[in-house]
Amino acid sequence: MKASMRLSEAFIPTLREDPGEAEIVSHRLMIRAGMIRKTAAGIYTYLPLGLRVIRKIERIIREEMAGIGAQELLMPILSPAELWQETARWEHYGKELFRCQDRHDRDFCLGPTHEEIVTDLFRQEVRSYRQLPLTLYQIQTKFRDEIRPRFGLMRGREFIMKDAYSFDTDESTARKSYGQMYDAYQRIFTRSGLDFRAVEADTGLIGGTSSHEFMVLAQTGEEVILFEPEGSYAANVERAEVSPPTESSDESRLPLEKVHTPGTKTIEEVSAFLHTPPHRLIKTLLYQTDQEEVVAVLIRGDHQANEIKIKRQLGVQELTLADPATVQAVTSAPMGFAGPIGLRHIRIIADHAVHALRNGIVGANEADHHFIHANCNRDFTLDMVADLRQAQAGDPSPRNGKPLQATRGIEVGHVFLLGTKYSEKMKAGYLDAHGKEHLTVMGCYGIGVGRTAAAAIEQNHDAKGIMWPLPIAPFHVHLLPVSPTENVLHVTQTLFHELGDAGIEVLWDDRNERAGVKFNDADLIGIPYQVVIGEKGLAHKTVEIKDRRTSTVTQLSPSELVKFFRQF
Amino acid sequence: MKASMRLSEAFIPTLREDPGEAEIVSHRLMIRAGMIRKTAAGIYTYLPLGLRVIRKIERIIREEMAGIGAQELLMPILSPAELWQETARWEHYGKELFRCQDRHDRDFCLGPTHEEIVTDLFRQEVRSYRQLPLTLYQIQTKFRDEIRPRFGLMRGREFIMKDAYSFDTDESTARKSYGQMYDAYQRIFTRSGLDFRAVEADTGLIGGTSSHEFMVLAQTGEEVILFEPEGSYAANVERAEVSPPTESSDESRLPLEKVHTPGTKTIEEVSAFLHTPPHRLIKTLLYQTDQEEVVAVLIRGDHQANEIKIKRQLGVQELTLADPATVQAVTSAPMGFAGPIGLRHIRIIADHAVHALRNGIVGANEADHHFIHANCNRDFTLDMVADLRQAQAGDPSPRNGKPLQATRGIEVGHVFLLGTKYSEKMKAGYLDAHGKEHLTVMGCYGIGVGRTAAAAIEQNHDAKGIMWPLPIAPFHVHLLPVSPTENVLHVTQTLFHELGDAGIEVLWDDRNERAGVKFNDADLIGIPYQVVIGEKGLAHKTVEIKDRRTSTVTQLSPSELVKFFRQF
Repeated sequence: MKASMRLSEAFIPTLREDPGEAEIVSHRLMIRAGMIRKTAAGIYTYLPLGLRVIRKIERIIREEMAGIGAQELLMPILSPAELWQETARWEHYGKELFRCQDRHDRDFCLGPTHEEIVTDLFRQEVRSYRQLPLTLYQIQTKFRDEIRPRFGLMRGREFIMKDAYSFDTDESTARKSYGQMYDAYQRIFTRSGLDFRAVEADTGLIGGTSSHEFMVLAQTGEEVILFEPEGSYAANVERAEVSPPTESSDESRLPLEKVHTPGTKTIEEVSAFLHTPPHRLIKTLLYQTDQEEVVAVLIRGDHQANEIKIKRQLGVQELTLADPATVQAVTSAPMGFAGPIGLRHIRIIADHAVHALRNGIVGANEADHHFIHANCNRDFTLDMVADLRQAQAGDPSPRNGKPLQATRGIEVGHVFLLGTKYSEKMKAGYLDAHGKEHLTVMGCYGIGVGRTAAAAIEQNHDAKGIMWPLPIAPFHVHLLPVSPTENVLHVTQTLFHELGDAGIEVLWDDRNERAGVKFNDADLIGIPYQVVIGEKGLAHKTVEIKDRRTSTVTQLSPSELVKFFRQF
Repeated sequence: MKASMRLSEAFIPTLREDPGEAEIVSHRLMIRAGMIRKTAAGIYTYLPLGLRVIRKIERIIREEMAGIGAQELLMPILSPAELWQETARWEHYGKELFRCQDRHDRDFCLGPTHEEIVTDLFRQEVRSYRQLPLTLYQIQTKFRDEIRPRFGLMRGREFIMKDAYSFDTDESTARKSYGQMYDAYQRIFTRSGLDFRAVEADTGLIGGTSSHEFMVLAQTGEEVILFEPEGSYAANVERAEVSPPTESSDESRLPLEKVHTPGTKTIEEVSAFLHTPPHRLIKTLLYQTDQEEVVAVLIRGDHQANEIKIKRQLGVQELTLADPATVQAVTSAPMGFAGPIGLRHIRIIADHAVHALRNGIVGANEADHHFIHANCNRDFTLDMVADLRQAQAGDPSPRNGKPLQATRGIEVGHVFLLGTKYSEKMKAGYLDAHGKEHLTVMGCYGIGVGRTAAAAIEQNHDAKGIMWPLPIAPFHVHLLPVSPTENVLHVTQTLFHELGDAGIEVLWDDRNERAGVKFNDADLIGIPYQVVIGEKGLAHKTVEIKDRRTSTVTQLSPSELVKFFRQF
């Protein structure tokens, strides 16, 4: 596609109506603006306008990767099963992995990520510490067979990702590589014109010791972020640490008492029935682990359990809430009345806030009954006290103790310090200066390129359409001649060439359409600057420049236009 | 990857030894020069140096596509089976199609080409003749499960292709689009610095009415090309037409005679036994078609049958030589003695040269016997006379009658005029100015990007390594400091920055290696210009510029270098 184009010659099929399939604004606007079309569920064709945005983001990524010495390569999409079997991910990845066989019945998957391939390359090509540090990256199509693909490019099954992998001699140099990548990501999203935040994140399935997510802030985001309004700490809500309460209660312990609470099973019901606020209640959650153990987890009534934290504390991979039969067997009571008092043969673990609570209310392991004035260490004992709950707005920051605030975000980038998770399994080592073999310490880093484009729209739109940040806009200037006269045509044509020659990317709406149609399409497509050329303005020797975002209008002589845009 | 790089910081793992797996020079050199590595059979990782070459070719392609108004999009790799079923290619493509299923058991293939996807896009988005002509293209990874992947990037299973599709209102405008693409291909391969030839080609499985292949001329090529040395005609040997002989024989017909030819089955054996040159012999080939018919095909002894031509004349898709049992059943004789005389119940078709032959020698349909002085229309009759044989060097050009010459080539590009083959099956139409519906007339066009890089090496190498054409070379200049002195380091560093600032891409061999090692790697990698900086030269205030291809050496003052390279 040329840097500048005439709309009549461009394949930009805009739609006036919202497409039925689209649930969120970026998906809706990308389809309406003629940027993408669905080929199958979660599988899209990038039309010329969409691809231009993708390419702009890719270019920023490439420049910043080069800036930190990362080298681009391109690994294959077809990924042989043998490599994935070495790390056991062939099994662990489950149904999200697209699998296929070749004509000789050999197994392949379509790469969702490339740790195995790049680690295999490393172990074949790198011998010496002299070749380290090494950071390799690619921009490649990835595949993930999502159970419910949706939201357009936000959660697709085939998507474009930048993935990078760093190899270092030890943990401290690996942290340096991690830091450089972290900084590069900051620059990439800043240069892309996005309002984002790097937050501490859980390391999840991919494993590793340190991790940050880059979140584009948007009310429609699927992720919740907690952050210090005036400090540096920010974390995914699932990751955010909750410090133990600093002050202990001086409330005196009252005698334990069993009360009749007919038909009250939920926190809300018990709270209302006993006229007691939820923060005096204790939820007793019974979980079954992948080790076939049942564990009671105590969480304060106004808090939410965080299963990632619980899993980490228990050292298990899977956790499911116990079914009614198991609850009945363990507590001798129907669901809704479990409590720690008198519970035998299973471990009981509690969140810090439960440990600090005096005179709490717990289930009595008996239908329609609760205990009030329950106190731990007196009425029941705990096998472990830890941070097991979801953090929430108002919780003190683990850094400076001040209350955290909550916002929503879209994950567009993720950096992991992997350690030796893959190099150990795949025996990827190097020889040090003394000829001694060590495992390489790895990091892996991803940016969802299509998702970045979608997130930019979630953050930058209004009722009329997209408002592209200039650095990733498909074009810089939208030329809108609104009078069908020779004079207007001539001025437009001149501007089209002058701006183009100055390196400004122009879309010229040269269609024979009413001004209203042109304005609607221009607002929908969202090119940052609209230049309206009409007889009325030209009578005063001016054209009108409208800033798509602010709607600010500037009147300028056509001859001043190149100079005006050069400032950006 | 930065425009310029230090070798010590670049991941370019060169090898001294030839890799065992590589059969042809481009494959060998791409591996030795650290451009590619095998991940699985026919599946490669492009290392940074290889990817640089790919990107240069891609850039030339994009510029030329923009030049003819083709618009870039990106279609998905996962291609839903339903679309392929509409054109019946889901069945016809056979085992070459990589197939997979998603978690809901829906069938997909990994796109080997995108006619179905793009035609589906067209029929959903294009309504009116006003939107035509339209040419869309992409540069996308393609998949073909080759039965025997080999030759590195030359015949891989996962490969990068530029594929373009044109949509027109009618055949004449479609021919115009085809011509523009043809011209763009000429420019692409010319700009890439390749010696190539556009040749007429068969339209094969993909169907269509007109087709040219772009062949990079190289002795190692798999394809044979016939061309007029001083004219414009050139064709793939499988496609090249053979005109009927213009002069008829004035030899008088001799009486048919059966001769005893014990144990002589091949042309060579019969020719030697009867002391008669092969061009007096007639081969009788018995073919079985996919219509369950057996057909006798007569070809002159010194000619080769062309199965593509035979298929086309018979209007069949498949053709296999009859097995011994069928030959025995049809001719009542063992294999090697089939002939047209007395052959009943099957069609007999002959090449023009057989029709023109007087007093030929044919099998007698009887073990160890042949007929001599066989003449058609007297001793046997023909159901069809046509061009059925392979053209060969020395045959007259179908254009100017002068003898054709033969050369070998590597197919790097292919253009097809498809007609309405796909638009008919998929109902892709448009409305004309009178509101009447028509089918769009399509063309499709491909360039193998990786294969172009490999073909460039086949055409540009010597015993020491690659000799890149400048436009697609991974770097322009290779800086080779050969004395480990402060002075040499300083001059090299200065040149590295000066050349880089001038937009010249430099690879600086900053390794602490002997000059011999550096020269060997430089010749292997094949960057067009080597600049040798040594104490000896600097004593005379010069550095040495060596042209990798011609070995021409120029002595220049370091300060003149930027100016010297700017001329290219």
